[in-house]
Amino acid sequence: MATHTAPHVIIIGGGFGGLAAAKALRGAPVRVTLVDRANHHLFQPLLYQVATAALSPADIAAPIRSVLRNQQNTTVLLGEVIGIDLANRAVILAPDPEAGETANDRLAYDFLILAPGAITAYFGHDAWIQDAPGLKNLDDAIEIRRRVFLAFEAAEREQDSATRQQLLTFVVVGGGPTGVELAGALAEIAYEALTREFRSFNPDDATIHLLDAGPRILPTFPEHLSRTAAKHLETLGVKVRTKAAVTGITRDTIHFGDERIDAATVIWAAGVTASPLGRSLGVQLEKGGRVPVERDLTLAAHPEVFVIGDLAALKDQRGNFLPGLAPVATQQGETAAVNILRAMRGEPMAAFRYRDRGNIATIGRNRAVAVIYGIKTSGFIAWAIWVFIHILTLIGYRNRFAVMAQWTYAYLTHRRPARLIRAEKI
Amino acid sequence: MATHTAPHVIIIGGGFGGLAAAKALRGAPVRVTLVDRANHHLFQPLLYQVATAALSPADIAAPIRSVLRNQQNTTVLLGEVIGIDLANRAVILAPDPEAGETANDRLAYDFLILAPGAITAYFGHDAWIQDAPGLKNLDDAIEIRRRVFLAFEAAEREQDSATRQQLLTFVVVGGGPTGVELAGALAEIAYEALTREFRSFNPDDATIHLLDAGPRILPTFPEHLSRTAAKHLETLGVKVRTKAAVTGITRDTIHFGDERIDAATVIWAAGVTASPLGRSLGVQLEKGGRVPVERDLTLAAHPEVFVIGDLAALKDQRGNFLPGLAPVATQQGETAAVNILRAMRGEPMAAFRYRDRGNIATIGRNRAVAVIYGIKTSGFIAWAIWVFIHILTLIGYRNRFAVMAQWTYAYLTHRRPARLIRAEKI
Repeated sequence: MATHTAPHVIIIGGGFGGLAAAKALRGAPVRVTLVDRANHHLFQPLLYQVATAALSPADIAAPIRSVLRNQQNTTVLLGEVIGIDLANRAVILAPDPEAGETANDRLAYDFLILAPGAITAYFGHDAWIQDAPGLKNLDDAIEIRRRVFLAFEAAEREQDSATRQQLLTFVVVGGGPTGVELAGALAEIAYEALTREFRSFNPDDATIHLLDAGPRILPTFPEHLSRTAAKHLETLGVKVRTKAAVTGITRDTIHFGDERIDAATVIWAAGVTASPLGRSLGVQLEKGGRVPVERDLTLAAHPEVFVIGDLAALKDQRGNFLPGLAPVATQQGETAAVNILRAMRGEPMAAFRYRDRGNIATIGRNRAVAVIYGIKTSGFIAWAIWVFIHILTLIGYRNRFAVMAQWTYAYLTHRRPARLIRAEKI
Repeated sequence: MATHTAPHVIIIGGGFGGLAAAKALRGAPVRVTLVDRANHHLFQPLLYQVATAALSPADIAAPIRSVLRNQQNTTVLLGEVIGIDLANRAVILAPDPEAGETANDRLAYDFLILAPGAITAYFGHDAWIQDAPGLKNLDDAIEIRRRVFLAFEAAEREQDSATRQQLLTFVVVGGGPTGVELAGALAEIAYEALTREFRSFNPDDATIHLLDAGPRILPTFPEHLSRTAAKHLETLGVKVRTKAAVTGITRDTIHFGDERIDAATVIWAAGVTASPLGRSLGVQLEKGGRVPVERDLTLAAHPEVFVIGDLAALKDQRGNFLPGLAPVATQQGETAAVNILRAMRGEPMAAFRYRDRGNIATIGRNRAVAVIYGIKTSGFIAWAIWVFIHILTLIGYRNRFAVMAQWTYAYLTHRRPARLIRAEKI
């Protein structure tokens, strides 16, 4: 059992990486403190389902302290990390604005695991954030949900037909898995869920565009699966445009190449960058703001500091940077925990080796494309595998049950149960 | 089937009264427009369960246009009514701030049903709203949920024991059904749901106070049921204080009589007042901002305008004002619809008569007090009746199913599934 003289491990971030590290330290002779600015672990792969009203926020969020409550050596703190004092081995938390700086705001560590994740990136166009929100956390998802359903509401009240058409035009920028999933879900909202609900227009009049700057959507998948995914999307009614690099976004128009689309709702799914916390480490960052790490996941010259998940820049055996995916973060969290215990025993640390089980993206309520253990598949079977994997990896029995029940309901009725708009921004 | 020459009925508000009126006009030879500033009907009796993380917001909210989608003569509009032009029979909507005033903002009616509900009242102490939020809509519920769980989070990080105790002290002001339900749920959160989750304190150290200015809680119930309810609350760990009229509320202290309690979280359940829309009618208002109505629910000298629900001031056979309860609003909505159809046929309107089926308040997860068709009961049986009635009257199959599933889970595990705090105000 851990005592107060046991080494103190601080984990920053309760995402897939941080939570896996904390769980791997259960019962170990260390004190663990996990700090996150939210009180919940977020199951990010299903965030697009909250943004499109298929699930409620609480369905994909598990309180971190609840997940770790039976782990006696672990303390969970809600707090925002604003700096890391590598020389003195301390983490600095943002003070309570009402209390000012207090002794509560500085935490000393013996080992540190940095797993703060990534944020939406606009690649030098930060002004676009206003008119094209990204999708990285629950606030983003609720804001997108609000904009999508508010556009339909405004269209019902609108008497000018050009303005109405603009309100019924939706653009998703970025053809990665999130963009593909969002566009597919938007098509289902317009063409299935909202049928018969409006009197001044037909939801079939809505248009959903998916734009990507590259030559094909889902570029991390084999080429023929990209084509299959595009075909599936078009069957759902999505207009897929590749080689469409966005040059401007305003409140009601999006420009790409020589073209423009008048659209009241634009969603940005075109990229992420690592947490700005990486900048406080004083090292040269890699592409996407990622922190270069040793093969054992430690920071150069700091064997007590581990960087994992979306913040870590590490190449695989073939020299490609590992992608920002949940399985990478989870496996790195486990390796970081193992390496801390090895270091405590004076053993050499292990090199991280990513076990790539595959890649999957879903398109609407019946189809997906997948590469699983090297086997490529698409259509209904890929979709069933997607459902199975996501239910299986959801944290917490209640969440699994709640999500399964709502998916069954939605599958049978084509409805979107969580269509909430509130007057204020929620 | 309704045509464009059919009389136009505007209903303001999609609560119990407005929705009942709209449903009662299904298939009638009228055009119906229901306007609400939210896109959802809210099942207010369960709002305290969202505030205490037992249910998700979407579980007690049904999109109004979805509820009425098969009612071809009915249009649903999302919009805020800012005025009523009685002389010209028109409703004025708040303009889209970006578009400015347009033709979309003025709706002419032949009949008007006013059902805008009530808001929280501080009886001349509006400054208290900041430190003691009320509970009338989903934003309120989410704000209370945020404050409650944030207090526990801050207590875990706090190293000063007096400050920590203040963070763990909760005060509910107002001993009506909402206050009693909130206090009971807070006790269950502290003493059951959060067990084993904190390391720097024991959730048993939390204190929950229920204050009421009057001589007993639940004053609309028979006296012995008030005593039973107080006893149930004390069994759960709630400190019940009657004759405790609040004289001041600041960020971390509440004053009543000569006493004070240091509490970081205060919730206001001590009163409501009718919607300010009543003031735009140019009539002398009754107590609580209510609009006096004729026995047929119309406004004096305006047989085409009906006022129902929390906004209507109408006395029962014994000369008491009808309470602001869902069954009153529902029955009034039905009567208003019937009276419109009678007026169209040239028949005299019917007088409203409230069929009082009873009154029920729940205390924690096993007990309630109830008067049903004159029969007084308390304890587990009353609680089972409460569950049955609330499931039965929830709008929408999905909501019923979702709430039932979550209650079953929560009942078996004592957990609170919807414990979401986000960095920003949600």
